[in-house]
Amino acid sequence: MSAASKALSQGASKTTNNAMPRTAITPTRADNYPEWYQQVVDQADLAETSPVRGCMVIKPWGYGLWEQMQQKLDKRFKDTGHVNAYFPLLIPLRLLQKEADHVEGFAKECAVVTHHRLATDASGKLVPASPLEEPMVIRPTSETIIGEVYAGWVKSYRDLPILINQWANVFRWEMRTRLFLRTAEFLWQEGHTVHATAAEAQAETELMWQVYADFMQDCLAMPVFMGRKSANERFPGAVESYSLEAMMQDGKALQMGTSHNLGQNFSKSANIQFLDKDGQHKHAYTTSWGVSTRMVGGLIMAHGDDDGLILPPRIAPSQLVIIPVVRDAAGEDALLDHCSKLASQLGSLSYAGESVRVHLDKRDMRGGDKFWEWVKRGIPIRLEVGLREMEQGTVTLYRRDQGSKDRITLTHDQLAQQLPTMLQEIQDNLFARAKAYQQDRTYHITNRQEFEAIFAKGEDGVGSKPLGFAIAPWAGDGALEDALKKDFAVTVRCILTTPPPAGSRCAFTDQPAREMVVLAKSY
Amino acid sequence: MSAASKALSQGASKTTNNAMPRTAITPTRADNYPEWYQQVVDQADLAETSPVRGCMVIKPWGYGLWEQMQQKLDKRFKDTGHVNAYFPLLIPLRLLQKEADHVEGFAKECAVVTHHRLATDASGKLVPASPLEEPMVIRPTSETIIGEVYAGWVKSYRDLPILINQWANVFRWEMRTRLFLRTAEFLWQEGHTVHATAAEAQAETELMWQVYADFMQDCLAMPVFMGRKSANERFPGAVESYSLEAMMQDGKALQMGTSHNLGQNFSKSANIQFLDKDGQHKHAYTTSWGVSTRMVGGLIMAHGDDDGLILPPRIAPSQLVIIPVVRDAAGEDALLDHCSKLASQLGSLSYAGESVRVHLDKRDMRGGDKFWEWVKRGIPIRLEVGLREMEQGTVTLYRRDQGSKDRITLTHDQLAQQLPTMLQEIQDNLFARAKAYQQDRTYHITNRQEFEAIFAKGEDGVGSKPLGFAIAPWAGDGALEDALKKDFAVTVRCILTTPPPAGSRCAFTDQPAREMVVLAKSY
Repeated sequence: MSAASKALSQGASKTTNNAMPRTAITPTRADNYPEWYQQVVDQADLAETSPVRGCMVIKPWGYGLWEQMQQKLDKRFKDTGHVNAYFPLLIPLRLLQKEADHVEGFAKECAVVTHHRLATDASGKLVPASPLEEPMVIRPTSETIIGEVYAGWVKSYRDLPILINQWANVFRWEMRTRLFLRTAEFLWQEGHTVHATAAEAQAETELMWQVYADFMQDCLAMPVFMGRKSANERFPGAVESYSLEAMMQDGKALQMGTSHNLGQNFSKSANIQFLDKDGQHKHAYTTSWGVSTRMVGGLIMAHGDDDGLILPPRIAPSQLVIIPVVRDAAGEDALLDHCSKLASQLGSLSYAGESVRVHLDKRDMRGGDKFWEWVKRGIPIRLEVGLREMEQGTVTLYRRDQGSKDRITLTHDQLAQQLPTMLQEIQDNLFARAKAYQQDRTYHITNRQEFEAIFAKGEDGVGSKPLGFAIAPWAGDGALEDALKKDFAVTVRCILTTPPPAGSRCAFTDQPAREMVVLAKSY
Repeated sequence: MSAASKALSQGASKTTNNAMPRTAITPTRADNYPEWYQQVVDQADLAETSPVRGCMVIKPWGYGLWEQMQQKLDKRFKDTGHVNAYFPLLIPLRLLQKEADHVEGFAKECAVVTHHRLATDASGKLVPASPLEEPMVIRPTSETIIGEVYAGWVKSYRDLPILINQWANVFRWEMRTRLFLRTAEFLWQEGHTVHATAAEAQAETELMWQVYADFMQDCLAMPVFMGRKSANERFPGAVESYSLEAMMQDGKALQMGTSHNLGQNFSKSANIQFLDKDGQHKHAYTTSWGVSTRMVGGLIMAHGDDDGLILPPRIAPSQLVIIPVVRDAAGEDALLDHCSKLASQLGSLSYAGESVRVHLDKRDMRGGDKFWEWVKRGIPIRLEVGLREMEQGTVTLYRRDQGSKDRITLTHDQLAQQLPTMLQEIQDNLFARAKAYQQDRTYHITNRQEFEAIFAKGEDGVGSKPLGFAIAPWAGDGALEDALKKDFAVTVRCILTTPPPAGSRCAFTDQPAREMVVLAKSY
């Protein structure tokens, strides 16, 4: 049996367990994965649809996740020499028009501002008034406007490199939206850099790609496949796009981030020129790179279980919740006071270079409801403290990465001593699980039959759920990609940096393989 | 001589010194204050106008200031029980329409989105396509959209209070813009809270007003006048608006922030109702409060001098810059290495609960140019280190709050020992200066003649620069406010919380005074 076939049969041997125990989320992942996702977003209080078509409301727990991501990324950006700045929300059409491929890729789905005033009509209704001379779009991404600004900043090689990041909202009109994964408005960061040489731009593109990978592994506990995009899947206007692709628990890929080498395409359309050391005027080389609130969706789908969200401690808005279990009014004040002290004691501990984030949940609601709410929200550690624990100086501790009934009793001293280690154990455990899942469901294939077993048959024999990702030797072209997309909804997620084994042939064309590609269905 | 007259003659005795020494900024404040402001914004590399009408580009040094403001405010918001969330950028007209006063106040100056697609016309030009069924505006402020969302969240008194803040961009079409002070797009935070009772909403409004005041005093080193807004100046839709008014160095007022008690106005228009403990359905009480990138403009005008910006250490993106003074190539590597070590040594020190922010400026440019660049950027402390200082283990230190030629020589140990204290001295010194300026130019007036001396005559006798603020006993109404605005461009900046002295009469109407008001020209 070949390695590939063995991997395939392993995947195929997995069956759906229809006799699930009671879970906090209905339906389970196995029953209906897309609906499970929506339910987790809802019941973990992460986000909701808004009265504005295609736009979401990011609720405090979901936004807290984004804040943690922002902090961790921002530190990494600054540690690699970048600074933040802010550029206009609106882009005049004449600027958008400058880069032809870019227009093709983005112009079709923009929110267009055409007026700058409202008036009241005869029936008292507000209506647009005062048309603009030139309409503008809300930025779908900022290469064109930032390029225009950079053209004014760059005169000499001494002005380079420019290493700037922007935290911003962007807007792309989407007809079919899913919270976090695809919404009209989303939050992101977009790095935009300018360099004197092609080599420096390439180095920057790869550096930020690696910064993303480290962040995803260390903070999100998510393994990713890294590779170049094929010409079909490249960012409109880029010379080369590098992506990070994570596997969700339905075997589909989610593109978690991209880093683009834009070559001289945007510097030529925006006219970013500089006087080089050799006295020559040259067009600069630019890059752009971004990750968005979409990562929240990836985090949910990578780690969640049938009880809801499971958060890696490094990224959890709160890492530990203390739930005072009040059975009657007597002793309530003393218990709350006791728990407050415990909260500040634990909050003074340090984990991963930061203070431990402790939340004391004093709300007046049933303990069981409160408990399950925090399970669904995925908080790494839950502590229950009742009057008996208070008297004994202990806590009852539950870890979200373990069974919801697995509990341990610890004294305060034991807890303080073990907490940082335990948080790291949870972090490592989640990464190991996700990594094992990814590896179990990644199949090295050599021919089309193996491809079809993964994607056309899949887990249920009719292809509604793929077995996972395929890694294949490849000598295909855009037409082959189009065919795989049309027939199987499968795309080349990325082209790996590792070359194909000597002598290997394309799994589809039987030509000598040029490269190794990751193939998957995707979000 | 009455106290008021004495104060007036003090003010009047100040004259403009036309024989200024050479300064880094041309013109000086005395020569042309508005142009001085523009030059500081430009030469301190804070921001610039953009290719998009009315929108600014916030450059890294300016954005760094905003980031510091964000961090400090965000901590204070969280310490007072608030969390962050994010709401849609766009507001459908039907929502905007719901609160009548609000529409009146904001609808006139909005960016209106009317299409969701672009097409290419016969000449190849991009044009709007696919009109929306209902146009939307880019949020000028978010009461209406957030109110609509809150209406879905609030069912019971147990859901209250809601204590949420949003960091966001907003857009108000402005015909005459000035960087930071008045731009079409700006960045801000907007707190939006919901409460069960009027008393709680009032307490929240006052709490956040005080949080702003503490932040402005402690971090921005800016004293402010605090008071209610008059009905004329109130936020559209508010029951009561509380503002913080700072004095700029041209004697004009800048509104630095506001906190609004919205009563039940928005809860009624958005239908935010809850079932109270007593079994009754009730409309909730809401508040909103915000500060923006406008504060950067205030900071410039409060502390800057004729050499450029002067930054309070608490809010400076970098608090100290190390400038290696390289006279020839020999020894350059050793010097840079020496300075890197010094930078990390100083960066490990702590000031005001944070690591000291140190910047090592290794750029290849003339030392004098570099030095003046940092003067203009307002960095609190500049260190020069040449080969001789390296050998002696010393640095030459310049404080931005002192003369540009006042320098002291310190050993590394002395520097490490004195740095945190010195930063606090600079912080305190800037506050003391701004406070003295504000007090010197605040006149307690009792009649219209004194008012006119301040505003109609002013420093130059023709009123182009007021002497400062007037505090007056007041029994006026909206019509009087309109007249003062029309005739003198003076408005009631705020109504102080301190009552008028017993028996005092309105400076304008001679009626018994109801309250004490602060009158000023303003931005």
